[in-house]
Amino acid sequence: MGFPQDATLGDAGEFGLIAELVALFPQGEQVLVGPGDDAAVLRVRHGHVVVSTDLLVEGNHFRLDWSSAEDIGHRAAAQNLSDINAMGGRASSLTIGLAAPADLPARWALDFARGFAAECSLVGASVVGGDLTRSDKVVIAVTVLGSVTEAPVLRSGARPGDTLALCGRQGWAAGGLAVLGRGFRSPKVLVDAYKRPEPPYDAGRTAAEAGATAMIDVSDGLLADAGHIASASGVAIDVHAAAFDVAEPLQAVGAALGADPMQFILGGGEDHPLLATFPDALAVPPGWLRIGTVSEGSGVTVDGAEYDGPTGWTHF
Amino acid sequence: MGFPQDATLGDAGEFGLIAELVALFPQGEQVLVGPGDDAAVLRVRHGHVVVSTDLLVEGNHFRLDWSSAEDIGHRAAAQNLSDINAMGGRASSLTIGLAAPADLPARWALDFARGFAAECSLVGASVVGGDLTRSDKVVIAVTVLGSVTEAPVLRSGARPGDTLALCGRQGWAAGGLAVLGRGFRSPKVLVDAYKRPEPPYDAGRTAAEAGATAMIDVSDGLLADAGHIASASGVAIDVHAAAFDVAEPLQAVGAALGADPMQFILGGGEDHPLLATFPDALAVPPGWLRIGTVSEGSGVTVDGAEYDGPTGWTHF
Repeated sequence: MGFPQDATLGDAGEFGLIAELVALFPQGEQVLVGPGDDAAVLRVRHGHVVVSTDLLVEGNHFRLDWSSAEDIGHRAAAQNLSDINAMGGRASSLTIGLAAPADLPARWALDFARGFAAECSLVGASVVGGDLTRSDKVVIAVTVLGSVTEAPVLRSGARPGDTLALCGRQGWAAGGLAVLGRGFRSPKVLVDAYKRPEPPYDAGRTAAEAGATAMIDVSDGLLADAGHIASASGVAIDVHAAAFDVAEPLQAVGAALGADPMQFILGGGEDHPLLATFPDALAVPPGWLRIGTVSEGSGVTVDGAEYDGPTGWTHF
Repeated sequence: MGFPQDATLGDAGEFGLIAELVALFPQGEQVLVGPGDDAAVLRVRHGHVVVSTDLLVEGNHFRLDWSSAEDIGHRAAAQNLSDINAMGGRASSLTIGLAAPADLPARWALDFARGFAAECSLVGASVVGGDLTRSDKVVIAVTVLGSVTEAPVLRSGARPGDTLALCGRQGWAAGGLAVLGRGFRSPKVLVDAYKRPEPPYDAGRTAAEAGATAMIDVSDGLLADAGHIASASGVAIDVHAAAFDVAEPLQAVGAALGADPMQFILGGGEDHPLLATFPDALAVPPGWLRIGTVSEGSGVTVDGAEYDGPTGWTHF
């Protein structure tokens, strides 16, 4: 580093630190102009671009005492890459805005960038630009660009008779978050699932190729996100609770906290699995779990009845 | 509105408010999928995309008591659109991340969106997606996408013998900011210039077509941004102070505050004019002011000497 190990962001200065950060981000062959100019220039295939943006705010989406900088980098990248996955797309390029206190260690920003870059490398995407500025709390703004080869899979295409299916871990991160909220650090598998979600990055394109009619990534909560599909598509969705295996660590946390572990599965929104509808049960690709049915009507039920547990995240 | 006039963001809730916000953003013909899904899908011409991102933090980049929500919307859009301008490009699509306190009036967010949309309409660009979440202070994250028809004009192309030129108002916003900082509200033209910069949105493409060798928008300060061209290009730049007409309101503010008004021109970074180099003086397009020269060496001087006034914005 061009500054002392214990330098703060304020010490390291914007320009010196940016050079160190940029060096952590390898540039893919699609990048014609990378970080350092007024804008990046990217080569685009297929004549279109898929774009999504997300904010992560300290104390709201993450806590500096619960997650390492590298964990937060992984999570910030993962939740954005997941949005492209949910369109049936392939992520190619990202920008990062980082606002942080001047007394935050410069090392924190570098570790954050390392985690972010590592997560992006899982899908071969590049960080092509960003902004670094001062604020009282850490705020991370990520925008991701990608492409789709099939038609994008929207939230609005579910039809009565479709089968609802899920791909990826669900409820583990919510279990981990509940554990952290009570001051515990185990079961470690759940805490780790919260710190570094593992979205099924190939599943979105597979689902698109298999004819998925609607798709979303679970970020607000399984039932809440099923509700987004239901309202966008003008259909009713019934989730079948018996479809889920309640993993042993979730059972353990439920018992320890005196909670029904199904609330993590039905209400949790931090794992970023994919939720999709398929025209029939046989179209559901391997690796996906059939968890419900689509019918005429509106709203989301569990086993035919309204669910009375926590159903997910509200942003205000 | 679907909620009372005096509702807060918290009252209005994320989803009801988002529908009201989205309704303020007309979608251009390039938008295949607009706001409301996991990602937007955009048609892209010319096989590439130009992308840039910026953060604006309350108390750092703007103050809620100095600027109206609509002003801040204009400014947030302008400074991002200006980055595409500085590449010689045309902006097409933007995303907005807005983090704000739950007790901020919902009306503030709507007025902000109105100002943002109005600024985007000046260049025919669409807001295609965003994110809305809670934070202690208002933080605005904007990403802008665009295209270039000529090759993009980078910061790194200036050559010894080039002419340095400027297009757009410079120093007015810095004068306005100085006035506001002393608790005054006039001269109004300067305060307004700070609240709503007026970047010369067509000048970037004109400069590219005229053969500009390097270009940047002035956002850190005229000398600081000249310094970015000098270091990226490996050249020295000399700015000629006599090239500038010091506008009457700047002279008035200088006299009132006991400051040399040239410090607003040389150090100010809030107007977003374009600074570019051209292979010779005759190549400089109409509407641009020739303000300096490029030679072998490094660094930026004013009339051949180091400048000892304030030279611009540092982010930490």
